Amino acid sequence: MSKKAVVLVSGGLDSTTVLAMAISQGYDCYTLSFDYGQRHRSELEAASRVSQLMNVSQHKVVKLDLGTIGGSALTDVSIDIPEHETVGIPVTYVPARNTVFLSIALGWAEVLSADTIFLGVNAVDYSGYPDCRPEYIASFEAMGNLATRAAVEGNRLSIKAPLIDLTKGQIIKEGLALGVDYSDTVSCYQASIQGLACAKCDSCRLRIQGFIEAGIKDPTRYQNNA
Amino acid sequence: MSKKAVVLVSGGLDSTTVLAMAISQGYDCYTLSFDYGQRHRSELEAASRVSQLMNVSQHKVVKLDLGTIGGSALTDVSIDIPEHETVGIPVTYVPARNTVFLSIALGWAEVLSADTIFLGVNAVDYSGYPDCRPEYIASFEAMGNLATRAAVEGNRLSIKAPLIDLTKGQIIKEGLALGVDYSDTVSCYQASIQGLACAKCDSCRLRIQGFIEAGIKDPTRYQNNA
Repeated sequence: MSKKAVVLVSGGLDSTTVLAMAISQGYDCYTLSFDYGQRHRSELEAASRVSQLMNVSQHKVVKLDLGTIGGSALTDVSIDIPEHETVGIPVTYVPARNTVFLSIALGWAEVLSADTIFLGVNAVDYSGYPDCRPEYIASFEAMGNLATRAAVEGNRLSIKAPLIDLTKGQIIKEGLALGVDYSDTVSCYQASIQGLACAKCDSCRLRIQGFIEAGIKDPTRYQNNA
Repeated sequence: MSKKAVVLVSGGLDSTTVLAMAISQGYDCYTLSFDYGQRHRSELEAASRVSQLMNVSQHKVVKLDLGTIGGSALTDVSIDIPEHETVGIPVTYVPARNTVFLSIALGWAEVLSADTIFLGVNAVDYSGYPDCRPEYIASFEAMGNLATRAAVEGNRLSIKAPLIDLTKGQIIKEGLALGVDYSDTVSCYQASIQGLACAKCDSCRLRIQGFIEAGIKDPTRYQNNA
């Protein structure tokens, strides 16, 4: 029987590539997404579509109202999504988001008896997000190994972030080698309800550069042929 | 200006005592509760009542559907609440619950620029819950100090669990010395909608023993004069 893994999926380019990598490594994958009050809700449909296309064992969407605590352009419609590069930690940063997502993944991993959690964080492109750094991931893993019944009983938990040192171009090449169809994925912070990307936000700009870097025709569906 | 703290409150005896302690230490308190699909929903009303009576700056309730991942008698009505002492980690354990709650508190602390989070875990009574141990709390604090923008900018986060080594009787004496009225609190895992306790579940049994140990008349409102 193959080993179980919980894979955090957003329906975007990075997490879809991570899912393809986990599957190629022989893991029995359980995908987890969050309905956390994000503006870009078409990503939830992409997460569900990608999970189905890649034949995961189960896909769960946990509802969680992060908008209650505020503090991010991604959950607060009164803060504009920046359409140009910004200095420092961007306003699209959601306070403690990866910690919250990993914590719920930890709980599901315990219920499933899965000892691995995959996530698609990337230190190169998102250097402004503190919870995308390798030292943060290592620290969460150490905490997770003290937090659960499974850990107390000796089943060591592993948090894998295989994209952490890759550029967007390298991620795309890795995914294409594993057969990922990126036209199924949505990265945009303000995608239309049909999943069409704006081509302007941080996430779109990084993605566009990634396809250029990889030398691959960009299959993303943009608004107004942007 | 006093220092801000986020205080996790469940409306129960322990967290209400912690809130009184945080206030007595001069913190400007922001209380946080979770609507996580728990059966004992009257605790949310108690959390709100206690927050109001103790004049906190703000009380937030974050909705979070932990029932989606399952695995606990507290969120799954198909698992019975045990009415006798059990061996090992009880079925009322909610996978990764404290980790999830602390993670969201971490996010709110960042939004508020609060550098302290208080929670009412207790290693003596709940020795079966892995996420109530001092080494777990220390490890979460270390992780939290790598996770946020505030931490990156040098504001050290502190997680305080002042009840961790106290017995239930000691907690009650501490709270009474600070003027807590325990008739306002609800600890029961299966309290009635009016907040009446069952007197039978783990949480009720520990609380009853606590009042006996403290030598104090138990002000809890029980069902059918239980």
